[in-house]
Amino acid sequence: MPASEVPRSAADRLLDVLAAFDLRNPALSLSEISRRAELPLATAHRLVGTLTRWGALERDESGSYHIGLRLWEVAALAPRGVALRQAAMPFLEDLYETTHENVHLAVRDGLEVVYIERISGRLAVRVRSEVGARWPLHATGVGLVLLAHGAAAVQEQVCAHPLTAFTPYTVTDPARLRRILAEVRRSGCAVSERQITEDALSVAAPVRGPRGDVVAAVSVVVHAGDDRTPALIPAVRVAARGISRALGWQPSVRTGPP
Amino acid sequence: MPASEVPRSAADRLLDVLAAFDLRNPALSLSEISRRAELPLATAHRLVGTLTRWGALERDESGSYHIGLRLWEVAALAPRGVALRQAAMPFLEDLYETTHENVHLAVRDGLEVVYIERISGRLAVRVRSEVGARWPLHATGVGLVLLAHGAAAVQEQVCAHPLTAFTPYTVTDPARLRRILAEVRRSGCAVSERQITEDALSVAAPVRGPRGDVVAAVSVVVHAGDDRTPALIPAVRVAARGISRALGWQPSVRTGPP
Repeated sequence: MPASEVPRSAADRLLDVLAAFDLRNPALSLSEISRRAELPLATAHRLVGTLTRWGALERDESGSYHIGLRLWEVAALAPRGVALRQAAMPFLEDLYETTHENVHLAVRDGLEVVYIERISGRLAVRVRSEVGARWPLHATGVGLVLLAHGAAAVQEQVCAHPLTAFTPYTVTDPARLRRILAEVRRSGCAVSERQITEDALSVAAPVRGPRGDVVAAVSVVVHAGDDRTPALIPAVRVAARGISRALGWQPSVRTGPP
Repeated sequence: MPASEVPRSAADRLLDVLAAFDLRNPALSLSEISRRAELPLATAHRLVGTLTRWGALERDESGSYHIGLRLWEVAALAPRGVALRQAAMPFLEDLYETTHENVHLAVRDGLEVVYIERISGRLAVRVRSEVGARWPLHATGVGLVLLAHGAAAVQEQVCAHPLTAFTPYTVTDPARLRRILAEVRRSGCAVSERQITEDALSVAAPVRGPRGDVVAAVSVVVHAGDDRTPALIPAVRVAARGISRALGWQPSVRTGPP
């Protein structure tokens, strides 16, 4: 949230209203918007009116505001959101039908993983990821893949900060993390066991774009100790290669695994 | 697009920049944005800068702008977008696994259908729907369901305008459309045969919210003439009821079919 002292343009203030909404606050009253966006009530009222007329916000019967359908439609044009997802969907379907477990597609944004898609079986292990959720890069399977194939500067930044432990199994030693990342690059996949929740294990592989750079990661999350884990690795890698091909990647170009 | 004569606030102009992007124009140069949003180049440049810093737009290597990941994340909070989709997804999965055809989830916005989700088999009949796409209400299966259960005023408005024919089979006679809508309400499902493309048939059923009102429609689209059509009707209705329950609908409340 912006510091009130910094002068903000009208455009900035409008975006601050949108930024007041997040996964924990998907519906807000006008006064909550005013407080979270650090705007006078009258200004918030005017901007919320503009956003509502346009369809970026909608007002429900209780008077609360939430993100509107028109903003969702415009945002569906994001190449790293819906467009990537559309290319990936048939392969994610195949992975889901094969495993009936949690199937994830994620991209890196700064020092975080953002989940673009999740397909979950109703009997699959409970996971903490949600579409649109952000996680640090060092602990999830998709995060390890995206970190391993990220720029050296990103890896330096991640290792320079304390690594959050989500369970006693989370790797928090930078030197050990670096060895794991080297192994992820060598093997073409990442296995994260009990690092986010103690009962889950994630197998992840890189998705490459037309120029061979890693643009996303795909994973399957199963119960830790599931004896199908060794068989999941080739399944996830095949799906990741399929998505890469759909995006225009050509395996003949030397880009290393997958 | 706004008429240039009407004075626009800074907030309106920012939203006009976002509105310059659509399914046919997912990537735009600065001058295209300026033209489509009817803004001087300098103003467009400043607003695009603000949107890019915030993450609502991203600039690719060719210099074109497209919708950014952060806007997608915020928009993922839309209850009628991602949240509805998340509740529906396990049931759409079940429909897909049963049929391996195109499975759709759609909502009504004004006089149009907006597709929220599509799961497509790679062998399924080609359809013209895309996530985020809009279609008129009178011809698709989901549109007929949403129109049949929409307010009388919406039906009046649709019937007052010429009904677009997409194929020779599209119903364009308002009186015939009204009879079809009555039948959709009575039977709890809609069948649209060859009305959008000549080779496709859609079976759709209503999804109800906690208060029993129809908030969405789910459909399966198969090849016209597919002899599984009679069996699809109960499958689609069961899936629609499942989604309705997940949204808090209680079948004991008298709301008619589904």
